[in-house]
Amino acid sequence: MILIHTPSPKEVSAYLELFRAAMPEEAFTDLEHADLSAVRHLVTWGLPDDLLADMPKLEALFALGAGVDKLMSRPDLPADLPVYRLLDGGMAAQMAEYVRYGVLGYQRNMDLYRRQQAEGQWRKLAPRLPGDIRVGVLGLGEIGAAVARALAADGYRVSGWSRSAKTVEHVRCLHGGGGLEQILADSQVLACVLPSTPETRGLLSAERLTRLPQGALVINAGRGDLLDLDALLELLDSDHLRGAQLDVFPEEPLPATHPLWRHPAVAITPHVAAITLRQPSVEQIVSKLRLLAAGQAPAGLVRRVQGY
Amino acid sequence: MILIHTPSPKEVSAYLELFRAAMPEEAFTDLEHADLSAVRHLVTWGLPDDLLADMPKLEALFALGAGVDKLMSRPDLPADLPVYRLLDGGMAAQMAEYVRYGVLGYQRNMDLYRRQQAEGQWRKLAPRLPGDIRVGVLGLGEIGAAVARALAADGYRVSGWSRSAKTVEHVRCLHGGGGLEQILADSQVLACVLPSTPETRGLLSAERLTRLPQGALVINAGRGDLLDLDALLELLDSDHLRGAQLDVFPEEPLPATHPLWRHPAVAITPHVAAITLRQPSVEQIVSKLRLLAAGQAPAGLVRRVQGY
Repeated sequence: MILIHTPSPKEVSAYLELFRAAMPEEAFTDLEHADLSAVRHLVTWGLPDDLLADMPKLEALFALGAGVDKLMSRPDLPADLPVYRLLDGGMAAQMAEYVRYGVLGYQRNMDLYRRQQAEGQWRKLAPRLPGDIRVGVLGLGEIGAAVARALAADGYRVSGWSRSAKTVEHVRCLHGGGGLEQILADSQVLACVLPSTPETRGLLSAERLTRLPQGALVINAGRGDLLDLDALLELLDSDHLRGAQLDVFPEEPLPATHPLWRHPAVAITPHVAAITLRQPSVEQIVSKLRLLAAGQAPAGLVRRVQGY
Repeated sequence: MILIHTPSPKEVSAYLELFRAAMPEEAFTDLEHADLSAVRHLVTWGLPDDLLADMPKLEALFALGAGVDKLMSRPDLPADLPVYRLLDGGMAAQMAEYVRYGVLGYQRNMDLYRRQQAEGQWRKLAPRLPGDIRVGVLGLGEIGAAVARALAADGYRVSGWSRSAKTVEHVRCLHGGGGLEQILADSQVLACVLPSTPETRGLLSAERLTRLPQGALVINAGRGDLLDLDALLELLDSDHLRGAQLDVFPEEPLPATHPLWRHPAVAITPHVAAITLRQPSVEQIVSKLRLLAAGQAPAGLVRRVQGY
């Protein structure tokens, strides 16, 4: 028995229909109709607490998302349960669009023209070509590499950073502590698509944000706990940073009283940079289920030590 | 003698340097040092009134821009003087960026999230893929065709419209009166990059704007006199249209008291969508000068009847 669960019953119905169409030979069910003692595979996002203890036959968990930090930190998650995360599910292309919007707006000064408009000011700013803009992408997994490649194809000068050494065509790839120093010092636009892990939490600290060149734009579409929001606000107010495009926050929804909401240099989106698209996600999980049934090892197994 | 003139002396100096480097055999000069009676070629943007009468030997005029409507309507322009306009000069790529910014923001709801932000509202909107968005491009000259091609490459469903029939790969090409009706009825985003001619002035009238589907976005980067601003404002206020991204206006600068400045659904840029870039413009004009010297016909000759 395969249990599908998300906090939205409407979404669960949609997933059930897609999974049943893709694997008619399997028994898919929702929480209401499930015999928990018979559940062998769990496909989920936002599982209620303590439910895992009632599934003694559980063999694998498939997360309906790429970021699994919350899931992995659950105390009720069995230490030996294999957890698979979505490797793309249509998210890489969406993330590339989200970052491109910020970078293109920065290159074409659309953010500054918006602020001029608020003051009724007609003033032409110096034009800049894509080749004039240095973009740094933090994170070079499937999503980060796709973002970096898309920006390079647009003509931007793109560097990418990851924990360990990677290679991405047309992208200057940096890694480790020295690489982080270098990408911070170089990037007019810094786009963060890193997962939240013990190693990345707090990565964009006050001290590191200060290393960015004067007038830089920060895009965070990774996780909210990577970026020090107080430091960001201070650097925006002192005009060291030019702006921020933020999709993720330490607390979501971002509290209504938070000063970010009203900051003229900040664009806020409600965690929508890359949404799990149902059809490609179902196809990916079905293909993993088939591999497991055939005794093979699917990709996307979360490594407990790294947390992704 | 070849006279270079723009309203900015600093710009004239920059152009003189580039032209002299590209054609050391020719004598380039500015207005201050020119012997007008000896000028045979004029490279200009914003020429003072009545100066043309003092150049009896003038053989050709090269406009430092693609839009020549103001120049062509000058009463002092000799009827038989060949006028060449810039065919690209780096402008097509810039225009594609400008339109892409509006289309991408519309697809990803960045405009609506901006308005939600102003109200401190955290609400996810339904995601849309590029293939969900129908874009219409008015104008399929060098610039319009480049814009349409770029949007089609991004995955949007692109139609283009022009006076006479054209063909652009991956773009549904419409033309004439019937084609205009069709593209208006179909386009969730309508991007206008038409020149101003007797035939296009007032093209986007109240009646035609009303034909756009509910919730459409209008981008005007062609000329200000193509679009009825009063009608646009009315359709924005009645929520028939969702927004507008405007780069050109009937009067520029847009008067400080104009209601467009403060409209939450309008983005205003100060005629910067596609700026003449010096180096490619110089290269293009030099190549035309060489063709003329060799007795050949350069491209970009403005047809007096059509006005472009």
